[in-house]
Amino acid sequence: MYIPDLLPRLLGGDRRALARAISLAEQGGPASRALLAAVYPHTGQAHVVGITGPPGAGKSTLVNALALEWRRRDRTVGIVAVDPTSPFSGGAVLGDRIRMQPLGGDPGVFIRSMASRGRLGGLSRATADAVALIDAAGFQVVIIETVGAGQGEVDIARTAQTTIVVEVPGMGDDVQSIKAGVLEIADLFVVNKADREGADKTVRQLRSMQRLGAPPADGWEPPVLPAVATSGQGITEIVESAGQHAVHLRAGGGADARARATAEGELRAAVQELAIERLRGPAWDALVAQIAARQNNPYSAAEELLRGL
Amino acid sequence: MYIPDLLPRLLGGDRRALARAISLAEQGGPASRALLAAVYPHTGQAHVVGITGPPGAGKSTLVNALALEWRRRDRTVGIVAVDPTSPFSGGAVLGDRIRMQPLGGDPGVFIRSMASRGRLGGLSRATADAVALIDAAGFQVVIIETVGAGQGEVDIARTAQTTIVVEVPGMGDDVQSIKAGVLEIADLFVVNKADREGADKTVRQLRSMQRLGAPPADGWEPPVLPAVATSGQGITEIVESAGQHAVHLRAGGGADARARATAEGELRAAVQELAIERLRGPAWDALVAQIAARQNNPYSAAEELLRGL
Repeated sequence: MYIPDLLPRLLGGDRRALARAISLAEQGGPASRALLAAVYPHTGQAHVVGITGPPGAGKSTLVNALALEWRRRDRTVGIVAVDPTSPFSGGAVLGDRIRMQPLGGDPGVFIRSMASRGRLGGLSRATADAVALIDAAGFQVVIIETVGAGQGEVDIARTAQTTIVVEVPGMGDDVQSIKAGVLEIADLFVVNKADREGADKTVRQLRSMQRLGAPPADGWEPPVLPAVATSGQGITEIVESAGQHAVHLRAGGGADARARATAEGELRAAVQELAIERLRGPAWDALVAQIAARQNNPYSAAEELLRGL
Repeated sequence: MYIPDLLPRLLGGDRRALARAISLAEQGGPASRALLAAVYPHTGQAHVVGITGPPGAGKSTLVNALALEWRRRDRTVGIVAVDPTSPFSGGAVLGDRIRMQPLGGDPGVFIRSMASRGRLGGLSRATADAVALIDAAGFQVVIIETVGAGQGEVDIARTAQTTIVVEVPGMGDDVQSIKAGVLEIADLFVVNKADREGADKTVRQLRSMQRLGAPPADGWEPPVLPAVATSGQGITEIVESAGQHAVHLRAGGGADARARATAEGELRAAVQELAIERLRGPAWDALVAQIAARQNNPYSAAEELLRGL
């Protein structure tokens, strides 16, 4: 597809154009930036929901169940599955293709796995771009699924208006589970696999950890919701709670603060990508070799490069 | 402590100076960069070992056991525990203080938890700086412990010469465990809690996943080592295997390639930090507000800012 054709088709909701646009955004570069710049005024409509939690928490199954519930409520749904460095496929297809099957063929659902192999630090930027493109294509709910609890995931979660943190009963011991580290970004907690032994204890632990923390600055007390994604138990409550959170954000002005935080993160990512792109070249390579040989240091080298910009 | 005094004391192995220097590096800014630039020529001596894996895998206990084993072999050990966004303490003290106790009081061991609250994307840079400082202070082995499997952790792992990926038996189902995503960065696999049911299966799975992947480019086939960190079982083998990997790197020239990759990552992080630091201000804030209001987009705004640099 010719790139200038992409924009009108994308805004018209053409799935092939959307897929092509996301691939372009994943590559980055000037054409990608031009497209995103043109798309940006058409974004900001979707309810962006982030879902994060440790491997094995059943996030993909939960995403699937939530998407089906939103579809039952006549909302169109985009899904961005972020899978860091899957080694063999260069992407996340292995698990997701199986799990997402029940949604396949529904024109009201768009699913995309983000490959992240080798893209140092650029995943957060590419994910935000994918969300913007799906939003611009008219999908009403955009779900971002991320694995794990690292800084990268926290950055990605900041793209979301509503962040759901998924835990499961009895994963590791208590201290480790507190260390998982995504608690402060949670707008909703879901204890998935709640039919397992220890689910009540996990719910109680999360509630008592909330009491230990500072009271929420924006007046939203994140609920702790038990669920069994495989059977659909608790899914309605999660969808409703996410909806209430969106309403709360808009009513309390929290939506503006989140939009500014998201905007700042996107600007930062764009500046960083652009700066690196412009600075790479023979001088960059020479400085890298000097740093590796301990004849120079990253900070003096960075000053030198930025002086030349 | 007066900053100019830091450098000689740090290079002399003064622990208070080292702690102070890491705090300075965590804050970033010009003083931090000046110190790091001065320290850099004295780095590159330590064997830097990264340890990563999902929450609940027993990483802290494993780090503790490995450090004790290295101490038995008369190696001094620095430990950097990276704990993303621990919500209540602003750091990682909660778990680590308990677990690291047996090492406390040994002058041949230096332990540091990196707080990461609110430091968007800067954790990778601050961790690399902490490693450099500990290295310059003369510690022979530096262990970096990271939680999770996200892009941030992958970036951090690139700071290490030898990366150990920890798995445990029966965590989640098979597909999810493949999705954990740190496999391609592993130089050693450790199946911890190997006295649990399913340990053999986890070892077999990891080995068959290795066979599915591309053969290692550098001729190093990552071993899969069972261990029980709490009882010390398998710890000797891990320390020896890590040592063999360091020898392999030096012998095969892989050490140079890793040093260049590390240098490039450090240069990239330094450029990004410096660029953002210089660009922040009233113009930055105005552009953020425009982007949030959809009157501008991150890419055009980034171009505008970089033109003004």
